[in-house]
Amino acid sequence: MMAKQVNQDQLYIGVDGGGTKCRATIYSLQHGILGTGLGGPANPLHGLERTLESIMVSTQMALQDAGLRVEQVHELNAGLGLAGVNLPLLYDKIMQWEHPFKQMFLTTDLHTACIGAHEGSDGAVIITGTGSCGFALVNGKTVNYGGHGFAQGDMGSGAWMGLEAVKAALLDLDGLGEKTTLSQVLLDHFSAKDAMGIAEQMAGQPSSGYAKLARYVLDQAKQNDDIALSIVKSGAGYISRLAKRLLELNPPRLSMIGGLSEPLQAWLDPEIAKQVQLPKQPPEMGAIYFAIQSAGQELQKAN
Amino acid sequence: MMAKQVNQDQLYIGVDGGGTKCRATIYSLQHGILGTGLGGPANPLHGLERTLESIMVSTQMALQDAGLRVEQVHELNAGLGLAGVNLPLLYDKIMQWEHPFKQMFLTTDLHTACIGAHEGSDGAVIITGTGSCGFALVNGKTVNYGGHGFAQGDMGSGAWMGLEAVKAALLDLDGLGEKTTLSQVLLDHFSAKDAMGIAEQMAGQPSSGYAKLARYVLDQAKQNDDIALSIVKSGAGYISRLAKRLLELNPPRLSMIGGLSEPLQAWLDPEIAKQVQLPKQPPEMGAIYFAIQSAGQELQKAN
Repeated sequence: MMAKQVNQDQLYIGVDGGGTKCRATIYSLQHGILGTGLGGPANPLHGLERTLESIMVSTQMALQDAGLRVEQVHELNAGLGLAGVNLPLLYDKIMQWEHPFKQMFLTTDLHTACIGAHEGSDGAVIITGTGSCGFALVNGKTVNYGGHGFAQGDMGSGAWMGLEAVKAALLDLDGLGEKTTLSQVLLDHFSAKDAMGIAEQMAGQPSSGYAKLARYVLDQAKQNDDIALSIVKSGAGYISRLAKRLLELNPPRLSMIGGLSEPLQAWLDPEIAKQVQLPKQPPEMGAIYFAIQSAGQELQKAN
Repeated sequence: MMAKQVNQDQLYIGVDGGGTKCRATIYSLQHGILGTGLGGPANPLHGLERTLESIMVSTQMALQDAGLRVEQVHELNAGLGLAGVNLPLLYDKIMQWEHPFKQMFLTTDLHTACIGAHEGSDGAVIITGTGSCGFALVNGKTVNYGGHGFAQGDMGSGAWMGLEAVKAALLDLDGLGEKTTLSQVLLDHFSAKDAMGIAEQMAGQPSSGYAKLARYVLDQAKQNDDIALSIVKSGAGYISRLAKRLLELNPPRLSMIGGLSEPLQAWLDPEIAKQVQLPKQPPEMGAIYFAIQSAGQELQKAN
């Protein structure tokens, strides 16, 4: 019982790092959420220094928002969910960081998203935003599908949809592919005169640049353009197959998160769509649960 | 006739710049090829300084090979065929270069490849190497298809084939796509244990990294793997459609150049395949013809 008493006085911070922003939430078991903060990009695959800086910015904002003093950072038990730390090299690099927290627990952004979506319990998540991937945690076992990155993976994601739209428009505009209303939509979007005008502006764009075009594909699919329909159906078909693979593990719940999860619902296999439930909590809360669970394990070890 | 006499004493240099190397050939109307040189990457889209340096390295090697003195660079009438100079901004930047040549004429690498393939006469070319594109020059009119770059264009190219192979293998290894023998071939190539092992090593690779995998697709297609067959047939189908579009202009000849032109021949539409003729001269000779033609036009203007 002593351990539990100590625990209830602890402060936790959950950090969810992403390619465009980093969210931090400070939490106490007694009072719940005390404050939140927002920082810049925190994907260690795209830069370690930048990631650590974004984590500190969001942490300082959360401390201020919680009415805590800057030096109370040393009292925080941190849970971090970051992309790429499934790679041992990257995991070790971040664990070697001379962080200011009381203690720090690190796992993947998928893991914390899953823990958050199911409020600390077992379950599965599919993330469909700029990228796409699937993750399940059942009885201590984890599985991971997709998430292989732009342009070779991440089917059904926003970046994938945007890329397929650009490919189809360029073929059509060259007279070398099927007609599609996406061509005119993209010419208008880029104020371009021809295929080369689109190609030039998209050359070297990161996945986020392509993801911005996904809404046109969804729009044109609703307007019954054959190419747009085939892109959306093919992407949703992949997400349905991904869901089936995750459901093979019998997770108690399945949630979809990310910007494309809502618009894709209508296109999923109906058997799958009816099993998808809303996430209970956001990924940064998942990072807090992860810290609480990990600290609990630490305390058990110490006793 | 005076002009022709003067012309015959002139020295020409043809430069073909590419993404991995730059070739230069020095030529006189009286004695033919005098010497050749090889420099590093010369694609101005990937770096202007590097391009100009590679042009000078290949030029100096060609001067030495020709037994000419370094300062005779000032006697050379240069023809340059470079990627990206269809963009006015890039064309102007290179034309503003304080080059050491007697005079310099600049055009696209496609244009010089076409002039070379048909020994200065009208014709059409399809380039299928790391990338793919089509170009025709008939009665002063030029057309241009494809060449929109990796990963959004360049169907039927080596980089496109490699990317399609990686995509198919990742889907298969996740149990989310059709079985393909490409999966084991790529696992072996990368000494990888699973899909993520392949994805990690290909993440952020340029088009040349994907093009290296094209030979596996051609190999497995010959072994009748359904996925490899469908990639090769789909790529060759695009190249056949590209050829048909170019043939609409009634070019006297059609040539294919680049590393994939030979292996793709067997997969082309037979009607197209029988119209494809070998290139008569390499692109750097095309650059020389371009310089001769351009200098001739200059002389006419001066008279």
